[in-house]
Amino acid sequence: MSKKNCLVAQSGGPTVAINASLAGVIEAAMYAKEIDTVYGGKNGIQGILEDSLVALNPLFQDASQIKALVNTPSMYLGSCRYKLKDEETSPEDYDRIEEIFKKYNIGYFFYIGGNDSMDTVDKLSRFAKKRNLDVKVVGIPKTIDNDLNCIDHTPGFGSAAKYIATSVLEMAHDTYIYHIDTVLIVEVMGRNAGWLTASAALARNSYSEAPHLIYLPEVAFHKERFVEDVKNLLATKHHVIVAVSEGIKDEDGKYISSQGGVVDKFGHTMLSGTGKVLENLVKAEIGCKVRSVELNVLQRAASHIASKTDLDESFKLGNNGVSLALEGKTGVMSTLQRLSNSPYTVEYGAAAIGEIANYEKTIPREWINREGNDVTDLMMDYLRPLVRGENQITYQDGIPSYLFLQ
Amino acid sequence: MSKKNCLVAQSGGPTVAINASLAGVIEAAMYAKEIDTVYGGKNGIQGILEDSLVALNPLFQDASQIKALVNTPSMYLGSCRYKLKDEETSPEDYDRIEEIFKKYNIGYFFYIGGNDSMDTVDKLSRFAKKRNLDVKVVGIPKTIDNDLNCIDHTPGFGSAAKYIATSVLEMAHDTYIYHIDTVLIVEVMGRNAGWLTASAALARNSYSEAPHLIYLPEVAFHKERFVEDVKNLLATKHHVIVAVSEGIKDEDGKYISSQGGVVDKFGHTMLSGTGKVLENLVKAEIGCKVRSVELNVLQRAASHIASKTDLDESFKLGNNGVSLALEGKTGVMSTLQRLSNSPYTVEYGAAAIGEIANYEKTIPREWINREGNDVTDLMMDYLRPLVRGENQITYQDGIPSYLFLQ
Repeated sequence: MSKKNCLVAQSGGPTVAINASLAGVIEAAMYAKEIDTVYGGKNGIQGILEDSLVALNPLFQDASQIKALVNTPSMYLGSCRYKLKDEETSPEDYDRIEEIFKKYNIGYFFYIGGNDSMDTVDKLSRFAKKRNLDVKVVGIPKTIDNDLNCIDHTPGFGSAAKYIATSVLEMAHDTYIYHIDTVLIVEVMGRNAGWLTASAALARNSYSEAPHLIYLPEVAFHKERFVEDVKNLLATKHHVIVAVSEGIKDEDGKYISSQGGVVDKFGHTMLSGTGKVLENLVKAEIGCKVRSVELNVLQRAASHIASKTDLDESFKLGNNGVSLALEGKTGVMSTLQRLSNSPYTVEYGAAAIGEIANYEKTIPREWINREGNDVTDLMMDYLRPLVRGENQITYQDGIPSYLFLQ
Repeated sequence: MSKKNCLVAQSGGPTVAINASLAGVIEAAMYAKEIDTVYGGKNGIQGILEDSLVALNPLFQDASQIKALVNTPSMYLGSCRYKLKDEETSPEDYDRIEEIFKKYNIGYFFYIGGNDSMDTVDKLSRFAKKRNLDVKVVGIPKTIDNDLNCIDHTPGFGSAAKYIATSVLEMAHDTYIYHIDTVLIVEVMGRNAGWLTASAALARNSYSEAPHLIYLPEVAFHKERFVEDVKNLLATKHHVIVAVSEGIKDEDGKYISSQGGVVDKFGHTMLSGTGKVLENLVKAEIGCKVRSVELNVLQRAASHIASKTDLDESFKLGNNGVSLALEGKTGVMSTLQRLSNSPYTVEYGAAAIGEIANYEKTIPREWINREGNDVTDLMMDYLRPLVRGENQITYQDGIPSYLFLQ
């Protein structure tokens, strides 16, 4: 069997763990006797179409570089939001990809990403079969949103959850110091799935019940009920901390964030964030001290507080993706299933890509309480193992030292 | 000499290091043979007026508890925003304090806080002298804003600086992945002093120049010049990351944040943040992808990424405060001066409280570049030592484990 080269690329939005999966692919591919050169495609499928490939072997001879890559946030190879069209309607992209695959003697293609990226894996694996190209196409999952099908939880989610819960706990300490009625609203990412917001519940401990209320996109949001919830809590305590998904919607499915529309001096309507809408609601209806905090991009970028469990699993999902390709599998996603919670164990496997692409997994209703303002123990059992363990990152003069592809 | 008790309290806004100073006071006071019981006053001077004191000795017999306190964010004893009036106009507060001091046989009073708290120290030390009370009153500094006089830098600042620089670096990684023109605006705390915003410059390293622009309250802000600055950078690069103080003002001294006033559906004008104003400016004048992030309270609460240098110094400033009181000093603040940058060394001392209270230290003009959109090497030399070192905090099931006074 003649040796082939492999190509790996990243796509979609960043997470803290997507480079750990890349490191897992690079390490496994460099040690595989079936694979010669490991190419990285810059800026996803878009860069590949532009012949923007870089040989990674020389950069990762040293194991310390693999480790540095594991700990680096965002996407070492860059990203794109390019969605491949169908081959029937626009064959030119596919012709170009075939050309690139042949030019670099690619036998294995690994694409690390979320829903949209798995759609690309689906299309490319079908195209390779149809054109009789000897290229195995394997997807490696990632998304902080945890909304992928056929996998217990997604790489990047555990680290984001750890950042969110830690931040909520630290902001709770910040809030508790004054004996005056205070509401803190923490807006968490998630348009359609509330997993990230639910993870704020991990902030609870023996002395702090924050977040006291949790609102998710899976349950219709009622402004009046929210005001009631806050008022009820303020009757017995000074501090109410609320975790809310950016994507909560009312009964008609209309985003709450779209209902705080404000008009600037030029008459343009601007959307304010969901947290800001709730802040204004509390201000108007209750009148106590209130603040809203949008966690923003830091929840997907804060490598300095990544979950070791998350990074380890992400690395192994990369490893496993290479094994799947070497076994001859194509059109699959590297996946993991949970075997037990205590002790926490998982097993790695493969899932047919057709069942994953373009499907969003949301929270089961029984993992949310009846009132729709908190999560249940089923959710807590699910979340707890995912944030465990701390990764030692390298600091230079007190600031994290990460890897960067020049 | 008969033994006296001591009283320590905290006041003003939280920082990551204020509990380290408290730990320094408790440790030194517990070991001092001149001091019997160490009382903590809950919620600052306000709690003391309400006789809300707790004996701390039993809680801190174990050295591990002292260490846990060092690593705990915000204020273990709670806070207040109560400003003591002059004794002449409202003697009742002073009568009450004298009563409390006598009831608990207080010989030493330590107040940890910023500008306003040092005003309280000033008033109480003068009052104790005037009424012939044998109580030494010593201030222990803290403020993330770094705006106190008579001290090289303030406890809490270094940790906030480390959080800000780390976050800017991690958000830079998040921004660099797409090859499209993108502006990221990071709003940092600081109404009148730009120290925190300046510290974002510590994010710069061999591969990343972010933040590319820095705007501080010390220099008048011109919207047109800001747009020009961004445009000039976008001519040669895809990504422009801006650090801006919440407190930037125009030439007339008017806050920029007050100029983004938007009107809600009920016709109320709402102030948007400074970052949001600049975001809308870039959107309107340049039209590229733009996002603003407000670091918000996390910059003063993120103990998980505290600067070890900061916590060590804060602890020693607490220790030193006790030494000063035992030496018979009163009406002073525990302080530190920098002896050299390399190796970085400081010495601890005392400063007369009158020179500190109600004075805000801003950035010297020569530490800001001529254009007013960056800092100079003088600032970098000043900042670098302050963020060095990482503190090992304790995690329980992946989430930080802090101390809390029930």
